[in-house]
Formats: sequence, structure tokens, C-alpha cells
Amino acid sequence: MNEFYQKDIISIKDYTKDQLETIFASTDKIMQLNPQDRREICKGKTLGYLFYEPSTRTRLSFDSAMASIGGNSLGISDISSSSTQKGESLADTVRIMSIYSDVLVLRNPLDGSSRFAAEISDKPVINAGSGTEEHPTQAIQDLFTIKKEKKKIDGLKIGIVGDLKYGRTVYSLLYGLGNYDVDVRLISPESLRIRSDSTYEIKKRIDFTETTDIEDHLDELDVLYVTRIQKERFPDEEEYLKVKGSYVVGLDMLKRMKDDAIILHPLPRIDEIAADVDTTKNAKYFEQAEYGKHTRAALLGMILNENGF
Amino acid sequence: MNEFYQKDIISIKDYTKDQLETIFASTDKIMQLNPQDRREICKGKTLGYLFYEPSTRTRLSFDSAMASIGGNSLGISDISSSSTQKGESLADTVRIMSIYSDVLVLRNPLDGSSRFAAEISDKPVINAGSGTEEHPTQAIQDLFTIKKEKKKIDGLKIGIVGDLKYGRTVYSLLYGLGNYDVDVRLISPESLRIRSDSTYEIKKRIDFTETTDIEDHLDELDVLYVTRIQKERFPDEEEYLKVKGSYVVGLDMLKRMKDDAIILHPLPRIDEIAADVDTTKNAKYFEQAEYGKHTRAALLGMILNENGF
Amino acid sequence: MNEFYQKDIISIKDYTKDQLETIFASTDKIMQLNPQDRREICKGKTLGYLFYEPSTRTRLSFDSAMASIGGNSLGISDISSSSTQKGESLADTVRIMSIYSDVLVLRNPLDGSSRFAAEISDKPVINAGSGTEEHPTQAIQDLFTIKKEKKKIDGLKIGIVGDLKYGRTVYSLLYGLGNYDVDVRLISPESLRIRSDSTYEIKKRIDFTETTDIEDHLDELDVLYVTRIQKERFPDEEEYLKVKGSYVVGLDMLKRMKDDAIILHPLPRIDEIAADVDTTKNAKYFEQAEYGKHTRAALLGMILNENGF
Repeated sequence: MNEFYQKDIISIKDYTKDQLETIFASTDKIMQLNPQDRREICKGKTLGYLFYEPSTRTRLSFDSAMASIGGNSLGISDISSSSTQKGESLADTVRIMSIYSDVLVLRNPLDGSSRFAAEISDKPVINAGSGTEEHPTQAIQDLFTIKKEKKKIDGLKIGIVGDLKYGRTVYSLLYGLGNYDVDVRLISPESLRIRSDSTYEIKKRIDFTETTDIEDHLDELDVLYVTRIQKERFPDEEEYLKVKGSYVVGLDMLKRMKDDAIILHPLPRIDEIAADVDTTKNAKYFEQAEYGKHTRAALLGMILNENGF
Repeated sequence: MNEFYQKDIISIKDYTKDQLETIFASTDKIMQLNPQDRREICKGKTLGYLFYEPSTRTRLSFDSAMASIGGNSLGISDISSSSTQKGESLADTVRIMSIYSDVLVLRNPLDGSSRFAAEISDKPVINAGSGTEEHPTQAIQDLFTIKKEKKKIDGLKIGIVGDLKYGRTVYSLLYGLGNYDVDVRLISPESLRIRSDSTYEIKKRIDFTETTDIEDHLDELDVLYVTRIQKERFPDEEEYLKVKGSYVVGLDMLKRMKDDAIILHPLPRIDEIAADVDTTKNAKYFEQAEYGKHTRAALLGMILNENGF
Repeated sequence: MNEFYQKDIISIKDYTKDQLETIFASTDKIMQLNPQDRREICKGKTLGYLFYEPSTRTRLSFDSAMASIGGNSLGISDISSSSTQKGESLADTVRIMSIYSDVLVLRNPLDGSSRFAAEISDKPVINAGSGTEEHPTQAIQDLFTIKKEKKKIDGLKIGIVGDLKYGRTVYSLLYGLGNYDVDVRLISPESLRIRSDSTYEIKKRIDFTETTDIEDHLDELDVLYVTRIQKERFPDEEEYLKVKGSYVVGLDMLKRMKDDAIILHPLPRIDEIAADVDTTKNAKYFEQAEYGKHTRAALLGMILNENGF
């Protein structure tokens, strides 16, 4: 029996390096299977999604992952605008959804919502984003992308640039990187630095330096992970425009980077990366999206299929 | 050939006790099948849903039921907000949807809408709630739950509490119970009593007494069916708060009931039943939701599969 | 290998008469297959839809077509109201969607959007309506309907009535008819005449005459294709009411037509065709909707299945 069978995916912090490597190996295996064999893995199984925050991208990634292994998906893509919600508690909604499906995928703005749901649900729960820090399947997707494209994670110099304060993606990635021997550079405007209440725990796992100037480390980086900077985060439009401009990744910036450095982005992108970067060999964000489908398929397969695949 | 093959489900009033028992037997059978055999029943069949009132719960119950027997679902989950509606008649929408699917599931606020749709449609129509009185698959789900949990329906004392005026669930359940020898107690505030234009017909089928005081019959009941009381129904907030409080089912109330009484609720629940009741052996509303999936799977299977299963 | 394998469907203008006849033959074949064999054609394939304009009808036609040949569908049914859109470019959305699916179905208000998407996408793109002129699968559906119901297209007298200015359906049909030797009568109020910038190109392919009076040609027509006239198009309500009334197809009008003339409509219909026409042998608009499902299934099958079927 595989160790992930019927287990929840709540936090990236719950995973050891060995477990992550097992997931990566399963993802490699699923990518090599022919489509017909792949569809046997979760044939006839049903994924139930509950999105309290809409996230079309994450939902479709799960939906297509489930379809690729022979399962189907149903659920509620935007509960907040669902007129049927009528004040029902999260607990009741989770209970009912666990009747309708074999695995639950939950996106909820509250910290701890997925762990709470997992305690209530008869079926395994996958956290598809909760609270300020947790988006474990995104972190697994990101780590797999680095491993796949750089052939290793240990020993890499990784820059993370943009809004490091509000994006749960960044925190999950940092916790995940904590399993590896990496050198991390956090690059953000002063007002969007990583939250100090989180850095204490992250620092126990990983060495990082902080800077506001993306040029500081550019020539050393093996990986540059770019995130969106949202205008709404700034009290002052002038500051926003200044910051925004200085962090846009373009061909100029790419020239100052290592020849084999890779650019990642959790997407959707607005204009943090110039379109002409897309066709360079460094741009790996669309591969990253594709790996997201396959890592999710591997996770679903291990959770729902006793013998793995 | 099974007698439900290609037949519509329009009103619970159309069913005899024998037919209900046949449906219950089929539901039992479907629950015992292994998932693989179950998925052969409607393999490749398509359910088309048309919801003129949104009802995520009912839609997902049908969707998951159809998935469990190997079929798939497509349709419109909220026609009123569909910008494509453009004033098309119900008749035309039904005609088109019957081209796209093997069975139609219709939720519509108008009395008679499902019977009208059934006359027009080439494919069988299932009423998923219409007008003030009809929700036949909910009634079948409720009756099956009582049968399953109490091993019989005849001879039971059944209390129905809450808003008895506006909920179509209550009327359908009463018409369904009319096939059995039961003793029904209707418990509601004065302003939410069962409508007198319906009681004439119900009285021909079933004996019931009415009360405003839930304590009157509590110690005698085998089944307590709880429904939501909506604030909007009251002209006066004070009366609402008074009524609401007096009908909340909690552990205290449970102590005054028979040891083997069961509590049902069509869900979603707001606060009509206290959360600490959930873990008692009397709480059967989540089982009820699960039986809803299986009764619907049985109905779909009998309608779409000539030989039954 | 069939010639449509992995090819895009962008414009009806790209198709020769021979290619249209191949599609019609495939549609005939798919209609004759038993459901089980039909579901083998695209077993396990995924259709990804991206609707920048909502069109429930077109989306469900594709969805049911894909289901009938064993595939499944996922996507975004109304991107403009999707809160996750967050300003992402069409290019990025198309790239991501082509990761999640085997074929893309795109509805977008801009001319050229589908051709642009096809250049970007790794997967074939089907135009489900773009700009002012293009709706190629609707045109194929319409041409197939005429062929099926009249046993030929060449030599027919075809009237097209209603709003000829704004409906992309009309333009696509005219371009498609350009492959055949037909006599076309365009019937519309003065203010809703076909756009002169398009007539130049259409005239190179097809002979048509224009009139405002539907009575002019009624007794000669083999096919009357009716389209909706939308009130919003008129500056003056009085003119709208006058026009609307004069173009309603009713039993009276039918009596003045050939006994074997057929009435078509792309649907949804409001009141351009009186309900009592529905039951006549001339009404073929519901058959047209059904053929729409089968022509789309044939197209999807040829695009996704190397050996055709």
C-alpha cells in the first residue's frame, strides 16, 4: 500500500524530503504512462470541489488532472455567490460533499479550514489554498518544476520576486524549499516584504536574504520565481508604478542572468514578465502549469488508488 | 422490462405503495453493487439539468448519483441569471435540452411545469422541485430514509416541525406518507401552518393533528422531521426570534424523546438542529443525504436502463 | 489519416465543397453508429472551452457532442464575469487551456481571435463564434440540415429573413452557401440589411437579391432561414413593432409557401416563428439543433481521432 492512500493534503509543512521525492517519482511515472493506462488509475472516481474563493486556474488544473486519470469532477466553483448557500456551515457543506465524492478539494480563505474539514470529512481532503500561507499542491508543483528543469534542488540559488507579503504561494514554496539545501534571495519592495511572524519559522528551515533591489543577485540565480504585484496593495499609486516597473522581467534582465537560469511564475501573469521572454529557453512558466496538472494527477492517484500506479 | 423505463417522475402523488417499495428495493440493490458494476448501469448516458431556481444541493445530488452509475451530467444551473436565456420559452429550452441528453432534470418555480415539460420532451423528465408542493425525489429519499432507519414506515408516529406553509418538501413528504398507515403530527407556529387548500387532499390520505407546541408529542414520536424557518417569512422580528428559539432541536429535547427516535432534515440546516445533536445515534440527516444520492441513482437507473439492474 | 486530424476550424471560408461533403458524410456515419461504438471515437479526450461571450446553447451543443463520442468537457463558460481573470491576456489563457485539454473551443467577440489563438495553441482550436462574421460550426450545421432535409443544396432557392446586419450566423451561412449553386433572397428591414462591406466578397461567391418584403419570394422558396430581430437594434420602438409583426412566420405565411419548403432557425427563438408552426412538417429547426450536435461530434471526432471513424 502506498503511504499517501486515503491521506489528506493539508500543509506543505507536513511533508519530508523523502515524501516529496516519492511524489516526484510518481509524477514522472504518470507522465510516462500512455493515456489509456493513465485513465485506469482513478476510473470512475469522483473529485468534489468546494471553492469559497473562486480560482478558475486551480480548479481547472484539478479537473483536468482528474480527467487525465479517468475520474470526473463536480462541485461548487464559487460558494460565496451561490444563492443556495443560505448560511450553511462549512462543516455541513463538507459532510455533504464527502457523500457526493471520493476526495474533496477545498479552497477557503481561513487558516486552518482544510485541517478542520479533514477532521469532519469521511473522505480525504486536499487543501487547494487556505489562509495566508498554505497552498501545498502549488508548492509541490513548483518544487517538481525546479527539480525537473534543473535536475536537482539542492545547491540552487533561488530568487523570489514580487509581492512576498500577501501571496500564500510564496510561503508554501519557502516551507517546501526548507527540505532542501538552497540559498534563497527574497526580492520585494519594502512594503511587500515577507511577514516577520512567518520568517521566524522559515528561518529555522532555510537561509534567506532580503533585498529591495532585484539587480543585487541577478547574476547568481539559478531560478527566478516571479509573482504578481497588485496595485490594490499600495496606498499610493506613484509608489506602485515605480515598484512595478523595476521588477518587470524582460530580455534585458535575462541577459544579466546565468545562461541556464529558469524563470517561473504561478500564473496568471499580468505584466511582471514581458511577452518576449516567453519564447526564450529560460521561460518555464508554461511547463510549470503543465507539471501542475501532472503533480495533481499523481497526488490524486496515490490518494485514491490503494496500490499506487 | 422494468415499469419505470422511460417514464417521467412528475409528482409523488403518482406513486403507489408497491411502486415505492420497488424503488426502495432497487436502491438497496444499487447500494450493494460494487462500484464497477454500478457504473455499468447508465454507462455513457447523459443527464441534462435545467434549473430555473438555483439549488446546488439538489443538482449535485443528481450529478453524483448519475456519476455513480457511469453517466455524466450537463446543463444550466441557473437559467434566470443566464444571459443566453434571451426570453426563450420553457418549451423550446426543454426541446433543445432533450436533444442534448437522455433524461431531463427540471427545477422550476411554477406548478405544473414538469408535467408540461414531459409532454413536450422526447426524453423522460424528472421533477427536481416545482411550484409549492412537488419535490418527488426528495419525498422518495425521505421515505427511504425512514424505511431504512426504522425498518418500516407503517405504524410510525412522525412529527414534522418548522415552516409547513412554504416548503414544498413537506407537502411532497405528506403525499408520500399517504401510502402508509402513519400518525402524523404537524408542529409549526400559527403563521406557518400547513395551507388549508392542501390539507383537504392530504386529509383524504393521512391522519394528522396540528399543534404549535413541539412538547405536545415529543415523547411519542418515532421520527422528527425538522425544516428550516426563514426569517423573511415573519412580518415581525420579535415573533420570529420567539418561534425560532422554541423549535431548535437540542440535546435537552432529545432526552425527552424515545431512545430510538430519529431526527431528519432535508438540509441545508441553519440552526434548527444544534451541532451537538450531530454525533448522537438519533441524528440521521447525513445518512438521509447519502440515501438521496442512492435513491436518485436507482431512479435514473430504472428510467434509463430497460432491464433495470 | 483523415485530412481534418489536428486541424483548426477557424472560418467557414476555409472549406471547399469537397471538404464540406466529407464532413456531412462523417456526420451521417456518426448518426448511424450505435452509442457504444460512438463513445469509442474520443474516449478519454478532453474538450476545453473558453467563452468570452456567454452562449449556453453553443456550449451545451459542444458538450453533448463531446459526451456522445466518449469525451468530456471542462472550461470557463463566462470569462468576463470570472473574477479569476485578473487581466490575463487571451494568449496566456489559451496556452494554459491547451495544457488542460485536447481541443479548444473558443467564443470571443473579436474578429481574428480564433486565428490568433490557433497560432498560440499546441492543440487544435475550434471557433465557436467570433467577431461579426464567423461561426463556422453553425454554418456547417445549417448546411448539413439543408442537405439532409432537402437531399441536396445545389439548385435550391433559399430565403434568409430577419436581422441580416448583426448576426454572425447569417454571414457564415452565406459564405458556406458560396460553395453551392443556390439562389438566395435576403429579406430584412432597410435598417437591418446585410452590411455592404461584406456583400462585396459574398457577391463573388453567390447570387443574392435583397428585399424588405417577405411576400416577394415566399412562393418560390425551398428553404426559409429565420433569425431573431432584437428590439435594441431599433432607434424607434414603433418601427420595431411594425417590422417585427411583418416578419413573423405563421401558418398563414406557410400556406403561401411550397408544400415541401422547410423553415430553419438557429435558435433561441423569441416569437419570429409562431408556436403552431412547430408541429407542421415544414418546421425543421429542432432537427437543425439535433444535427448541430451530430455535426460537432463528427468534427471533434475527425480532429481528435487520427483514423477518423
